Amino acid sequence: MIRILIDGMGGDNAPAEIVKGAVLASKEIAQKRDDFEITIIGDDEKIKAELSGQKYDASKIKIRHASEVITGEDSPVKAIRRKKDSSLVVGLEMLKEGEGDLLLSAGNTGAFMAGGTLILGTIPGIERPAIASIYPVIGKEASLLVDAGANAECRAENLLEFATMGSIYMKTVLGRDNPRVGLLNIGTEPGKGNSLTKETFKLLEKSFLNFVGNVEAREVPYGASDVIVCDGFCGNVLLKLTEGLAFSIMGFLKKKFTEGPIAKLGAAMLLGKLKDIKAEFDYSEYGAAPILGVSAPILKMHGSSNAKAVKNAILRGIPYAEEGVIAMISAEMEKVAEALEDEHQ
Amino acid sequence: MIRILIDGMGGDNAPAEIVKGAVLASKEIAQKRDDFEITIIGDDEKIKAELSGQKYDASKIKIRHASEVITGEDSPVKAIRRKKDSSLVVGLEMLKEGEGDLLLSAGNTGAFMAGGTLILGTIPGIERPAIASIYPVIGKEASLLVDAGANAECRAENLLEFATMGSIYMKTVLGRDNPRVGLLNIGTEPGKGNSLTKETFKLLEKSFLNFVGNVEAREVPYGASDVIVCDGFCGNVLLKLTEGLAFSIMGFLKKKFTEGPIAKLGAAMLLGKLKDIKAEFDYSEYGAAPILGVSAPILKMHGSSNAKAVKNAILRGIPYAEEGVIAMISAEMEKVAEALEDEHQ
Repeated sequence: MIRILIDGMGGDNAPAEIVKGAVLASKEIAQKRDDFEITIIGDDEKIKAELSGQKYDASKIKIRHASEVITGEDSPVKAIRRKKDSSLVVGLEMLKEGEGDLLLSAGNTGAFMAGGTLILGTIPGIERPAIASIYPVIGKEASLLVDAGANAECRAENLLEFATMGSIYMKTVLGRDNPRVGLLNIGTEPGKGNSLTKETFKLLEKSFLNFVGNVEAREVPYGASDVIVCDGFCGNVLLKLTEGLAFSIMGFLKKKFTEGPIAKLGAAMLLGKLKDIKAEFDYSEYGAAPILGVSAPILKMHGSSNAKAVKNAILRGIPYAEEGVIAMISAEMEKVAEALEDEHQ
Repeated sequence: MIRILIDGMGGDNAPAEIVKGAVLASKEIAQKRDDFEITIIGDDEKIKAELSGQKYDASKIKIRHASEVITGEDSPVKAIRRKKDSSLVVGLEMLKEGEGDLLLSAGNTGAFMAGGTLILGTIPGIERPAIASIYPVIGKEASLLVDAGANAECRAENLLEFATMGSIYMKTVLGRDNPRVGLLNIGTEPGKGNSLTKETFKLLEKSFLNFVGNVEAREVPYGASDVIVCDGFCGNVLLKLTEGLAFSIMGFLKKKFTEGPIAKLGAAMLLGKLKDIKAEFDYSEYGAAPILGVSAPILKMHGSSNAKAVKNAILRGIPYAEEGVIAMISAEMEKVAEALEDEHQ
């Protein structure tokens, strides 16, 4: 039995697309298994109104009423402390009380992070939870970027935590054996970078991970490593720039390819190929980003998620709860702590 | 009279492409003015051998012999101290002694930075020189990224220096009036980011610059600001990722567009348009990156510069020497220091 909790009120398209996505997911899961339910958390009336337009199995989709909403403008920690009946806080409390197995939200990232840490706590040995985001690699399997923006300031020990968690997630949930872990840096040689990357390099070298060394940003789009480790500031820059640049190139192509009749005809002949390229950057396919390090499975969906993105987020989120990733991270961090202790003796 | 010095031995394609580029530049400059000369510094025999295959005006192209070469593997400071007769050190000494007005090199960036600082010194008020690199904006005028990789670790005061220098260079050399200065950050609101960006935001807000606030990486490819300010680690990540991603998208297009006869025909009809897109990312058009803050004009060329890139680097480098940029930076930093003093009183 898997009990999926979803914040019905978070994100740009809530509750409409969240509800539609949940219904789509319920239909797809039902084709494979019967032991599941999805609880949509939020304004009872609004969610009912959205559901009323949909065909769905009422035994699989439930509503849990929550009267408040945390918005994108809310200050994270304050919102968690004050909006006790918000969909996000109610969802986190349900997860804590064992009324669900995982929680997804497209809402305020900072509040989700803060709420996860405050209400659920972190895994022993993890100081800082991190967002692990799929990084699209054209024509190949994607990489996993940790941290994608949760921690603007980090110590080397945090980056070792990110690497360990990312490696376990990549292996267990995304099915890549012995994932190659690379450190984002501004040069490939060991001595390169700033004090953070220099120190992190030494920790990763001594770790149990399949560390492949420094990775330059130039190589990231080619899939330089399965897991890319960096602080949340650089991770966010990397991810947002990729999004912006891919869209700007696509936009320019579109403009150029509609200049004049010959170009238009040529573009028509390439339509299928152009769609293939667009699909490579379609975040709605990736699923949600787990907030690794929190002691229960929570996943952040893209703020502008549509129904398809919500559906994929739910489907791809299930293994995070069912494969025992959190117990694995906990065990691994214990091993890391023991190794450090041995070294200090 | 402008006396151009160029390191004949630095970069992946030296001396062949450097020499060819210098000859091309001499021909293009000669169409507009007669008061110039280009001195190629490096191994006399090798440079002569390259020149022997070229048609050129010997009164405009000179050679200055230097017996040593600083390679990409050399440790910057050590190389500057030990290889006294390297083309790079000889070039910097010539500039110092007034035997030239600007120096270009495609060689070891770290050594060029270190040599510039050690031999030429920095402009009063500038603690850290920075590399200012053109950032291509599709379909629009380019932005200027400072620092593009010289300083992996920075204080807020350094970023204020970068912003001031970048703004003056953008206005004076690239001709953009009242350039908009943006701070690379992971959110647009003033309180966002890490301690460095938070502190820098406050300094830029109080500055004399046309500060437009935080700029997210997503907006950078759209030309969010004329000058983009960040530490050298993030700047390098931004620049390298842009290069890597643009090439990987182009490579994928090429692959897709040659799959099957219909695609090939369509691509043939779009050939001109595809070339337009490629041209947007053609670094050989941009010219070289000035190392701002050093007290004489030095410019770093891309390591893999071909003759065309060398030619453009020379042509576009001239205004840096002739427009009095360094005196302007010096005057502006004095103004900044006075303002800070007034504030503290």
